[in-house]
Amino acid sequence: MKIPKVLVQEIIARALEEDLGWGDITTRALIPQCQAKGSVLVKEAGVLAGIHILEQVFHSVDENIQVQVLVEDGAKVRSGDVVAIAKGSASSILSAERVALNFLQRLSGIATLTSRYVEAVKGLPVRIADTRKTTPGLRVLEKYAVRMGGGFNHRQSLSDGVIIKDNHLAILRSSGQSMREIVAKARESVPHTVKIEVEVETVEEAVAAAEAGADVLMLDNMSLEEMRGAVRGVAGRALLEASGGVTLENVRRIAETGVDIISSGALTHSAKALDISLELERGAV
Amino acid sequence: MKIPKVLVQEIIARALEEDLGWGDITTRALIPQCQAKGSVLVKEAGVLAGIHILEQVFHSVDENIQVQVLVEDGAKVRSGDVVAIAKGSASSILSAERVALNFLQRLSGIATLTSRYVEAVKGLPVRIADTRKTTPGLRVLEKYAVRMGGGFNHRQSLSDGVIIKDNHLAILRSSGQSMREIVAKARESVPHTVKIEVEVETVEEAVAAAEAGADVLMLDNMSLEEMRGAVRGVAGRALLEASGGVTLENVRRIAETGVDIISSGALTHSAKALDISLELERGAV
Amino acid sequence: MKIPKVLVQEIIARALEEDLGWGDITTRALIPQCQAKGSVLVKEAGVLAGIHILEQVFHSVDENIQVQVLVEDGAKVRSGDVVAIAKGSASSILSAERVALNFLQRLSGIATLTSRYVEAVKGLPVRIADTRKTTPGLRVLEKYAVRMGGGFNHRQSLSDGVIIKDNHLAILRSSGQSMREIVAKARESVPHTVKIEVEVETVEEAVAAAEAGADVLMLDNMSLEEMRGAVRGVAGRALLEASGGVTLENVRRIAETGVDIISSGALTHSAKALDISLELERGAV
Amino acid sequence: MKIPKVLVQEIIARALEEDLGWGDITTRALIPQCQAKGSVLVKEAGVLAGIHILEQVFHSVDENIQVQVLVEDGAKVRSGDVVAIAKGSASSILSAERVALNFLQRLSGIATLTSRYVEAVKGLPVRIADTRKTTPGLRVLEKYAVRMGGGFNHRQSLSDGVIIKDNHLAILRSSGQSMREIVAKARESVPHTVKIEVEVETVEEAVAAAEAGADVLMLDNMSLEEMRGAVRGVAGRALLEASGGVTLENVRRIAETGVDIISSGALTHSAKALDISLELERGAV
Amino acid sequence: MKIPKVLVQEIIARALEEDLGWGDITTRALIPQCQAKGSVLVKEAGVLAGIHILEQVFHSVDENIQVQVLVEDGAKVRSGDVVAIAKGSASSILSAERVALNFLQRLSGIATLTSRYVEAVKGLPVRIADTRKTTPGLRVLEKYAVRMGGGFNHRQSLSDGVIIKDNHLAILRSSGQSMREIVAKARESVPHTVKIEVEVETVEEAVAAAEAGADVLMLDNMSLEEMRGAVRGVAGRALLEASGGVTLENVRRIAETGVDIISSGALTHSAKALDISLELERGAV
Amino acid sequence: MKIPKVLVQEIIARALEEDLGWGDITTRALIPQCQAKGSVLVKEAGVLAGIHILEQVFHSVDENIQVQVLVEDGAKVRSGDVVAIAKGSASSILSAERVALNFLQRLSGIATLTSRYVEAVKGLPVRIADTRKTTPGLRVLEKYAVRMGGGFNHRQSLSDGVIIKDNHLAILRSSGQSMREIVAKARESVPHTVKIEVEVETVEEAVAAAEAGADVLMLDNMSLEEMRGAVRGVAGRALLEASGGVTLENVRRIAETGVDIISSGALTHSAKALDISLELERGAV
Repeated sequence: MKIPKVLVQEIIARALEEDLGWGDITTRALIPQCQAKGSVLVKEAGVLAGIHILEQVFHSVDENIQVQVLVEDGAKVRSGDVVAIAKGSASSILSAERVALNFLQRLSGIATLTSRYVEAVKGLPVRIADTRKTTPGLRVLEKYAVRMGGGFNHRQSLSDGVIIKDNHLAILRSSGQSMREIVAKARESVPHTVKIEVEVETVEEAVAAAEAGADVLMLDNMSLEEMRGAVRGVAGRALLEASGGVTLENVRRIAETGVDIISSGALTHSAKALDISLELERGAV
Repeated sequence: MKIPKVLVQEIIARALEEDLGWGDITTRALIPQCQAKGSVLVKEAGVLAGIHILEQVFHSVDENIQVQVLVEDGAKVRSGDVVAIAKGSASSILSAERVALNFLQRLSGIATLTSRYVEAVKGLPVRIADTRKTTPGLRVLEKYAVRMGGGFNHRQSLSDGVIIKDNHLAILRSSGQSMREIVAKARESVPHTVKIEVEVETVEEAVAAAEAGADVLMLDNMSLEEMRGAVRGVAGRALLEASGGVTLENVRRIAETGVDIISSGALTHSAKALDISLELERGAV
Repeated sequence: MKIPKVLVQEIIARALEEDLGWGDITTRALIPQCQAKGSVLVKEAGVLAGIHILEQVFHSVDENIQVQVLVEDGAKVRSGDVVAIAKGSASSILSAERVALNFLQRLSGIATLTSRYVEAVKGLPVRIADTRKTTPGLRVLEKYAVRMGGGFNHRQSLSDGVIIKDNHLAILRSSGQSMREIVAKARESVPHTVKIEVEVETVEEAVAAAEAGADVLMLDNMSLEEMRGAVRGVAGRALLEASGGVTLENVRRIAETGVDIISSGALTHSAKALDISLELERGAV
Repeated sequence: MKIPKVLVQEIIARALEEDLGWGDITTRALIPQCQAKGSVLVKEAGVLAGIHILEQVFHSVDENIQVQVLVEDGAKVRSGDVVAIAKGSASSILSAERVALNFLQRLSGIATLTSRYVEAVKGLPVRIADTRKTTPGLRVLEKYAVRMGGGFNHRQSLSDGVIIKDNHLAILRSSGQSMREIVAKARESVPHTVKIEVEVETVEEAVAAAEAGADVLMLDNMSLEEMRGAVRGVAGRALLEASGGVTLENVRRIAETGVDIISSGALTHSAKALDISLELERGAV
Repeated sequence: MKIPKVLVQEIIARALEEDLGWGDITTRALIPQCQAKGSVLVKEAGVLAGIHILEQVFHSVDENIQVQVLVEDGAKVRSGDVVAIAKGSASSILSAERVALNFLQRLSGIATLTSRYVEAVKGLPVRIADTRKTTPGLRVLEKYAVRMGGGFNHRQSLSDGVIIKDNHLAILRSSGQSMREIVAKARESVPHTVKIEVEVETVEEAVAAAEAGADVLMLDNMSLEEMRGAVRGVAGRALLEASGGVTLENVRRIAETGVDIISSGALTHSAKALDISLELERGAV
Repeated sequence: MKIPKVLVQEIIARALEEDLGWGDITTRALIPQCQAKGSVLVKEAGVLAGIHILEQVFHSVDENIQVQVLVEDGAKVRSGDVVAIAKGSASSILSAERVALNFLQRLSGIATLTSRYVEAVKGLPVRIADTRKTTPGLRVLEKYAVRMGGGFNHRQSLSDGVIIKDNHLAILRSSGQSMREIVAKARESVPHTVKIEVEVETVEEAVAAAEAGADVLMLDNMSLEEMRGAVRGVAGRALLEASGGVTLENVRRIAETGVDIISSGALTHSAKALDISLELERGAV
């Protein structure tokens, strides 16, 4: 399911304003009125995400550009693949190119990195999930890219999920509240539609939080041994989410501990852009 | 010189709206009215950028939070450094934490990566420069981070610099224009305040473009040998910018060819976030 | 916990632009530069909500108006109560008055209506909850007002809760999916932080959905008898939410069936404004 | 005459952003790509308003949804009436449904309440008029709904009409100005295109204000007897507007006093939403 | 009465974004952290308007700049007058200078031109009024400037005044409606707070429109002779507004015909900016 | 090359909101649903600019209005020329008319004034250039109009060009920096894509700045004699821009001194609107 246009049109408009400034002076100076064909060419292997954003960027610059999407988001792509073709005014395509690619490259980079984590845990009953460590202003797009890479979304914002984190606990424990009291107090006031997640640092804390009624436990920076202990100790009374220090190297071992979710901020804050370019030729319409 | 607040206030407001949704339900449910002290703690070595953006985020959530900036942007930081302290309402600090860190981590990541390139070419008369391959919506911040890392900014948008790229040339050559005609035509219409840059792929093209009056030549994906040829052939008649395929491994060798500028999209599109966290303690005001 | 200013400043700015137009021509024509004191006077009994929004409206018009909040949101008020006093430029107070009251009256109206439902079910283990039937553009404020009236919030948006409603089921059943398949499919893809709610119309559907693993059941327009049947049949395997046809007259009887949540769109879409006015006197500073 | 789209597109975009959040997770999880037909079904008698806003909401979510408007704004509707049909992607219709109905229900509620007042004074030469007591951010729509219900608009904002209210008079009288001076001073500076309205509380004040040249008198909370006195005393020298304490029960008696306009904030601040729903069926295109 | 900040803060923010782009590269490159004093110096005689907008611009760039307003809007100024002094960071003052002056020069230009028309009709009972021919996006400011120059505002927008213009009449007359029917129909539906103005081209039309009940007549491009005829013919039954072809040369003669209002688009669409500059000196704080 | 719509759609939307307010009450009251034809008629000689903005305004009000552009921007027009025809709903055309004309008249006014300066220097190798003295919020349009009049654009903002002006020098000289140091320091940090311009007031300063490596010299308010001296002294080492006190009377004499660019703020801050109107007739579709 594509992202509704109404949710991204402002993001795209701002990106274009940022890149066009008061207009593309190179193109204005040099390019005659003519038709051209731009091929969106992938230059390294990965997973595609954002192809309809690219389409929407072209249409935002010039509604007469025709964009043929050849490969859909979520597909694996290889170097040499042409994933879309834009036909129309050469000037318009040149002016839209960079912004269109900036979106596509970044989102495909996230989808690609996510897919590597997903691939690494293949066959194991675990979710690779994102975090709130996304680029300011682009969360809706980056979380979409995680899904395209086969990952799952964690909560979107502070308003749609409860995680009682170490910094909350630092405040609450200083007033002597028990985990049971804390979980009960949270449950009492938040919407009945959300689960209660608690960050824990030891197996004992995990067990205590599960017994206190937490729905999900975030195992923060635990060793594999501790995670296994938590899986045993909690024994299905809560979902377990491993978080912190997750890498492509250790993700499968983490998954093998039996946790239900592995979340990583790196999916969104440290993905490299996928190399994609646009090749233009004149008159090819 | 700090970025004027008026240029980032909307970026910050949108990031907060995105992360707060309809409010921080965890904090609302649990955290009493109390004062707290949050220490912004660096967890890996790098170069800081965005500390005043972090400050502005805290103030946007609650103007009564007091932020002490202990380390200024551009400084080298090490794991364990506390770079700022936020004091005020525990609830406010908790609600602002993630957005504040998202900005600081991303910008410091860019500054850190840039500084590695700058370090790698130390002593050589060359600029490390960014490109337009920035995160949509954050260009003003990301280009600032490049400067904080010791890098230089290339043009900001299509309106404030002329680069006649391969895709322009694909259109122009199909109508038989010579490089001399192309450069002259560009010069003729663009503001007298900007230089004319041309993308070239061979030494011959470089020499031709220099003779045609281009001010800057972008040497696109040339081998080191070709770059040296371009340096010799152009002989100071134009600035030379190496672009494409730049890595930390080869950047010094590129610099040693004698080019004036080395630009890399990776500085902004593929930097990893710097690991920075916030540690909260109650009543510490 | 107050609503963060950053979430309402645009709502307030637009409301002021709407009401000020190109300026208050009456005040501009007649009112001299002088100080005045405006008393915010409640004229009928209810529950207050929005007093800090009123304060923010006054400050948005003139940062020098001093607002003393005498009664906090959530408090019961009676006719004759003065809940806040604004002191400052007479012109500024006159220009801000209507917008400030429009917010306060509407939100207090919602809090008041909510509190009547809450009062009606006093002593019973049930939540009065809102819906998404809120005024376009004001959801964050209206859901706050529900909380101030002692009610609870349901999901905020389509992105932070799952309700499989009759219209979804109309589509899904036409392709022959069982309730078990539907619930499993939803669980499989949505964030692990949210619960799955299903709308049901009969006791049988309720039992089936609970057995299929739904976390919450929305009992749509059921009779009291059917609700009791659902409570018995589901036997604690899911939370039960009564919805549809809830009135102040029948809400206690609904609560007595044993459902966990009673939700009503009327709290927000059909609340009457609470009668509140501002009385101005000159020179009283 | 429909409201120009340019005046409501931002209101609609914000409402959709508010309700979609980062996307409709229920629909995304469950609904296959398929066509559906949604019938907009009225469930209680009233007057319709906002049917083209509903249409615009559907188009904002998905420009390919086809909306057939079967009943135009201003028409009387009864329970069971289908007023519009939306055909297109099932997912899109499901995602747009709530926002579309929220607008339509609220505006139809206002039109319906207005029409009851209009009906109540049928045959008498009097206008039912709205006030500035509208929902913040929706004034243009709510005043439209009043017109659809047969009512009339009062001034839109502080900038397009002059009403010298009790709070103005409280300031002005403290400096000893006479009504004649006050009206003259207002006339002297406001645009020549607007009339001068004065709020009065007694027959004597009414007569004095008319003699002072006021064009319209707002009779504030007068008894029927006083209103009749004002009608006699003013004798056509000014328009008379009854305001305050107007109800469906007393509105005809007020009209019979001979006043020209009866205004009521309740039309917009206390109207109940009209019950309207959307019934979806698959494949019906 | 100053324009409420909330009405101009977006206009100012956009103007600064437009002028700062991604930052003031000259100042950033060269200017050290130091204090400076900028004197706002008038360089030709005129009437000041916008001095508090200039102040707000400086504060929008840097809230620590101290602005002393030495001359208030509406005052006559001469070459050499210093009307305000800004003290603070040299960089901030340099970055804000152009935008601040652009507002002040344009608004003072309008006030100055208006004041010349006002001066030209001194002693005669006539208003100089503006039109809707204002700069897109700046109407609230430009109409303020007209008032500062001693002029009066006509309607602000299509929603707050009725003018039945030639283009309306072209449509209406083609369906054979009489002036009496047209005026009655307008009166019947527009708010009771606004007057009905009709554009007329001959004395006969003027008399007919007055008899039809129009409140104001716009005498479009009439000769002085015709205007005198209209004044005699209408005989006080309506206000008369002369419009079209008004110049500083003929405005007094027009006023002497006895019309009540003279309106001119030139006040806003063709005013020359007043010459005002900023002189900076270092360390002067 | 037309201005991309995405760069002006917000400017147009705001202008329409400003002019429509809550709707066109005159048209709403009087005009039946009917088709009409509006001819955009030039009433004085000049150069056209903004015809596609006019088109976009009509489409923003009603996408069904058909606009035929008969004369393109940049063309010379004479009184009596019809430059565009709008066909469609009479109401829509009437509601859009003023805003459409406001843009077209202002931009054509700027193009016309610019073309007079261009005409005045015909045959001489000099550019007529604009400045940053543009109307706040409309720079992108006004600089477009300058180009349509045959002029050239100077830098767009503080971020895309370096001009070291008198106010910078006032600060810098107080710390004893030489021109050579100043130019070098600027060059060292600004993007390599921009030139360095320096404002000079004497021939000696001009020569010194050229020798210091400045690319462009702004000759500020120099006499013709001094300009000639600067041309001789600089001898082609830098571009020379005459600025200050430029009029239609002296511009050719300035050009004859041999300067390369003549810039004038008057092109944008003091142009008179070109007289253009719309003539409507019914049923002409």
